[in-house]
Amino acid sequence: MSDTSNETLNDTSQARLHLSVERLGKDIESIAGFSESPPEVGYSRPTFSAPWRQAYDYIIEQATEIGAEHVVDAAGNLHIRHPLVGWERKVWLSGSHLDSVPSGGRFDGVSGVVIPLEVMRRRPELPLEIVVFAEEEGTTFNLGMLGSRLWAGTLTPDTMTRIRNRHGKSAAEAGATHGLDLARLTAAAAGQANTVAGAAQGPASPASPADAAAGAADWRSRLQPERYYGMVEVHPEQGLGLWDSGTPLAAVNRINGRRQLSITVTGQANHAGSTGMTGRRDALAGAAEMVLAFEQLGQELDRRLPYTVLTVGKLEATPGAVNVIPGKVVFSLDFRAQEEELLLEGERRINEIARTISERRGLEVEIELTEQLKPSPLSEDICSRLRQAAVRQGFELELVPSGALHDAAVLAHVMPTAMIFVASRDGISHNPAEYSRIEDIALAAQLLEDMIADAETNAT
Amino acid sequence: MSDTSNETLNDTSQARLHLSVERLGKDIESIAGFSESPPEVGYSRPTFSAPWRQAYDYIIEQATEIGAEHVVDAAGNLHIRHPLVGWERKVWLSGSHLDSVPSGGRFDGVSGVVIPLEVMRRRPELPLEIVVFAEEEGTTFNLGMLGSRLWAGTLTPDTMTRIRNRHGKSAAEAGATHGLDLARLTAAAAGQANTVAGAAQGPASPASPADAAAGAADWRSRLQPERYYGMVEVHPEQGLGLWDSGTPLAAVNRINGRRQLSITVTGQANHAGSTGMTGRRDALAGAAEMVLAFEQLGQELDRRLPYTVLTVGKLEATPGAVNVIPGKVVFSLDFRAQEEELLLEGERRINEIARTISERRGLEVEIELTEQLKPSPLSEDICSRLRQAAVRQGFELELVPSGALHDAAVLAHVMPTAMIFVASRDGISHNPAEYSRIEDIALAAQLLEDMIADAETNAT
Repeated sequence: MSDTSNETLNDTSQARLHLSVERLGKDIESIAGFSESPPEVGYSRPTFSAPWRQAYDYIIEQATEIGAEHVVDAAGNLHIRHPLVGWERKVWLSGSHLDSVPSGGRFDGVSGVVIPLEVMRRRPELPLEIVVFAEEEGTTFNLGMLGSRLWAGTLTPDTMTRIRNRHGKSAAEAGATHGLDLARLTAAAAGQANTVAGAAQGPASPASPADAAAGAADWRSRLQPERYYGMVEVHPEQGLGLWDSGTPLAAVNRINGRRQLSITVTGQANHAGSTGMTGRRDALAGAAEMVLAFEQLGQELDRRLPYTVLTVGKLEATPGAVNVIPGKVVFSLDFRAQEEELLLEGERRINEIARTISERRGLEVEIELTEQLKPSPLSEDICSRLRQAAVRQGFELELVPSGALHDAAVLAHVMPTAMIFVASRDGISHNPAEYSRIEDIALAAQLLEDMIADAETNAT
Repeated sequence: MSDTSNETLNDTSQARLHLSVERLGKDIESIAGFSESPPEVGYSRPTFSAPWRQAYDYIIEQATEIGAEHVVDAAGNLHIRHPLVGWERKVWLSGSHLDSVPSGGRFDGVSGVVIPLEVMRRRPELPLEIVVFAEEEGTTFNLGMLGSRLWAGTLTPDTMTRIRNRHGKSAAEAGATHGLDLARLTAAAAGQANTVAGAAQGPASPASPADAAAGAADWRSRLQPERYYGMVEVHPEQGLGLWDSGTPLAAVNRINGRRQLSITVTGQANHAGSTGMTGRRDALAGAAEMVLAFEQLGQELDRRLPYTVLTVGKLEATPGAVNVIPGKVVFSLDFRAQEEELLLEGERRINEIARTISERRGLEVEIELTEQLKPSPLSEDICSRLRQAAVRQGFELELVPSGALHDAAVLAHVMPTAMIFVASRDGISHNPAEYSRIEDIALAAQLLEDMIADAETNAT
């Protein structure tokens, strides 16, 4: 379909798309080179690690090359604007993240950063600010979307002193050399953003491009929604939908809510050889029964409301010896759906299932809710602008929900926000085999550019 | 029942049993003090670890205190004889092991070592050799009964260079400072035991008590069955049978055969939020289905032949992140039965089940047989001697099979071997809650002593 739609573009568009394909390809290739692990194992860029910083610096370098300026906010997020636009004007925000899960793919996050960069290369005069959020995946510090949540003010800055990476470093320590400034964030949270940020910023970087934004020091500690028309995040779909139907792009009008639970099943560790099959309280057999029941529950709820998913991703059995009946199993449950009501009903069912199985098997069970996020409806207005831009390019943009969470879900609660999904081959994500067609990525850049340009035309 | 039977003992026996209860209690208490983990977590003595060596040294110290001598054979097993008997005489062998599973109990193995020690304390003139096998549980190097198998010549010495502990050290490296001597074992395996062992031993320890056994250097590399009347291993039952029926002891006339398998299920790691319930190849859901099917198979086969068991003790899911569908699961399967035919049939069924589930779910499965041991019938003659000794003490000794494997299973294939089981409270084993009554343990010592003494009387 991307080929067909390209045929409907005019010659200038075609030539520009061609250039973009090359540049976007080079950007993605370059950033893939910054990884803790070799490509065959996958791409690994934990937040605030050396390869993560190299990717950050690559984006700054590319922006500088076209004369754009950058600012790092107190949450460590990178912002880029072109001087043709300046730091005062109301603009569209677009961006994503550069951190990755361990052994992840090369497109997740990265494509959403290089797309607005490419738009800025082609049309530096358009009202656009690129944003790179400092931490999205959640695998570095076991908590996700830190950059966007801190900036949007929906995460207590103190949290950063408590969560730690695999080296035992707190997020606050690890981020300190990358612009993370807890004092400013804390002041902003207390409503004193302007004074404190102004004082801290002024003398520290007297000649930096940041000076251009000195008068707006406050937005560097706390997102000011009035500075933006809205936010558009472009991201691989990470699902089968678009790829299977041969569709390059879709507009996202909703992000699933999520519950994460930690379930502990306790039985009786015992000798595997001398404990008869009937006298057992096997925690792993009980957990296995739950894993299957949750899979079936997920399938049932998905039939009622599409895009509902239940996943057991992590499971640890102890003592974990070949000849010992497991006495204890701890496992995670990730549960997502488009509607809060379904999440609430699902939670009740999960509890019921775990208790029924445990009782029947003489096991004990503890269920802890480790995360709770409501579904995020995205901006109808932005989705409609994106669809109109697509129609002018000669194709139709479907509306789909997002099963995965994104920084867009955080921003959606404070300003108009939408997303563009790019088809993912075979739906594979968080895996080195992740792949999106570069032509589809370039088409997303075209769509973002058209939407912003159309908004400008309509405004004047 | 132990109380009742004690009443039938004469006064001397009563007084001796009383002394034994105290000494055996102190032995078990002392060895429990040597552990990598605190008592509330359980007793952990990996083979060749510091606490394991402390337990070894405690036994040597206790033996030395009564004037007994010790020798460590080339497999790292400890042998103790009293000079009143000497290293040349044909004797009864009795012993067990001091290594434990992680977070195990205080009686498993230990009671079978301190019982012959107590017999030697009481009757040093009886023809008895104590043996402590260097590794039984199999949790340190993922392979069990190393000491007895190496000594009996049923394990290729080379294996010790391949298997590794959790620190990455091979069994050969880890055991080198504890007497393990691969060169001598290899020579013995090649039939050159006498020459090599003699040459290696002679100059190395010129004044050690081992010198007393210099002429018999060969048995230190390879068990010589003609040196023994037979072997009796005393061990907690690790099952419910004796405790539930209020019986302190039983004679074991058969040890279950065992298969151990490692099963690898491979699916597709993918994003837990954006991958729909129907497009998944979830390795953990597949493994969970297998765990349940194997549990049912175990129950079915146990109804056909009692003491049949199937256990999944170890399971690892990767990548093991809360928001990623597991792409790979590796788990262990332990399968035991009294009859080889049933083991063969069970193996076929296990393969069938794993393949059927994998195919239906689009998963791949690899099944590796990591251990294969035939059922071991034990010595009818020794069982009958033990039962006669019990009758003279005024109680009857039941015959039972052992679901658990023991070093006795290895020795049973080369010399007359039997076991005495001591009742385990609630059948709990491989768990810090493991418990056997000290009176029952003392009664087992009495029975072993009586059996040896009776054999002496009958022989003269």
